[in-house]
Amino acid sequence: MTRNLKLTVSYDGTDYSGWQVQPDAPTIQGTLASAIGRLTGEIVLPQGSGRTDAGVHALAQVATFSTASSVPTENFTKALNDILPVSIRILDVAEVVADFHARKSARAKTYRFRIYREPICPPFLARYVWHFPYPLDEKAMAEAAPLVVGEHDFTSFAAVDPERGREHGEVSNVRTIFSSTFERQGEELIYTVRGSGFLHHMVRNLMGTYNLVGKGTLRSTDVSGILEARDRSAAGATAPACGLFLVNVEY
Amino acid sequence: MTRNLKLTVSYDGTDYSGWQVQPDAPTIQGTLASAIGRLTGEIVLPQGSGRTDAGVHALAQVATFSTASSVPTENFTKALNDILPVSIRILDVAEVVADFHARKSARAKTYRFRIYREPICPPFLARYVWHFPYPLDEKAMAEAAPLVVGEHDFTSFAAVDPERGREHGEVSNVRTIFSSTFERQGEELIYTVRGSGFLHHMVRNLMGTYNLVGKGTLRSTDVSGILEARDRSAAGATAPACGLFLVNVEY
Repeated sequence: MTRNLKLTVSYDGTDYSGWQVQPDAPTIQGTLASAIGRLTGEIVLPQGSGRTDAGVHALAQVATFSTASSVPTENFTKALNDILPVSIRILDVAEVVADFHARKSARAKTYRFRIYREPICPPFLARYVWHFPYPLDEKAMAEAAPLVVGEHDFTSFAAVDPERGREHGEVSNVRTIFSSTFERQGEELIYTVRGSGFLHHMVRNLMGTYNLVGKGTLRSTDVSGILEARDRSAAGATAPACGLFLVNVEY
Repeated sequence: MTRNLKLTVSYDGTDYSGWQVQPDAPTIQGTLASAIGRLTGEIVLPQGSGRTDAGVHALAQVATFSTASSVPTENFTKALNDILPVSIRILDVAEVVADFHARKSARAKTYRFRIYREPICPPFLARYVWHFPYPLDEKAMAEAAPLVVGEHDFTSFAAVDPERGREHGEVSNVRTIFSSTFERQGEELIYTVRGSGFLHHMVRNLMGTYNLVGKGTLRSTDVSGILEARDRSAAGATAPACGLFLVNVEY
């Protein structure tokens, strides 16, 4: 009998070429697929809630796959963790209804972006933060953050790569952001954003724009105009992948 | 004019074949040497307070080198960090007297060993802890730890590799341990040891022995007998490198 299984998975994305399987590069999806294959003998490709780029991390990504294997659901977590590299950890495996889909069923996602502000970044954090030790008006950035809350066309913050949009079936660039905030935690400035969904590069492009606000190149209120422009060239550059974490996916 | 410079350096040892320079493998010493070479144009090999093994980390290793370069001492930290990979960070560069020697002048060193105790180790910690989720009598381990305090012949805990000892000029296996303790910090069991000096593999061999105490294979009081035996085979196996940090070196 076929079961639909929901994986909750955490990974250090540094040494992977992103989520999506590729022929000659290590990917999260490909590594999960081969671990599931070793365990069940089946050829399956787990479907994630969305792709993460090369170098992006996840605290709790969600993926689903179907299996006819006799392995009990409660044994999957430990069995997969015994096979997977330590940079990918299964946190939970649960059986879900047949029409549950990791991406289509998602109601909200939360991302976090970590910026390390001190002059010397400890080597143990370097893989997990954007080291930006230069002056930033953090108050202006905090003021700019909530301006993207609500339903908007995020074309200005979307990667210019139409193939990807079509492939995903994402014809519209309209998304709803529920919250968008900056917070200081010790040496780190932390951005947290929760929304209905995110376009390719959207969080990193928002961060690149907030960075221009912090540097004084833009005023905090300029973010509203950039949003209205629906023009990628109006916003800032794409911030580095290494500071970004997919925190969780809500269903 | 030649200056003797003291580097304080932190590193993530995961992707290095240890401290000591080797012809065809990335090492901390070799990477530092080539960064200094790029900055000063000189061929120098910084001398560390001691070697760390492949995979061992440092919060504050110390090394010295001589330079006739015109680069001001206060510029070295930033200039070297601009050249070095982010896995190696210079924390400080200071001029010291000509007869200061990173190893010979050291009065004490502190090491820390981190054990992650929960069933699933977060991928972001996997490089920096020994994941040991199995039962351990942590109270017995804490009782065993102080039994090595004082001046002892640590032959039972030294790597059986006489070449290395001779090369270092370390004919005696006698060392003085000032403190040796276990402490719980959240999900981690942390061992901290401070001593006059340490033999090759000594902290990892102590940890492998404490692990046998934790598992009940040895009693905590057995550690004294193992020390007296002066026989490597009396002690436990060498614990994994990844949990070990050189915390600091005192002069």
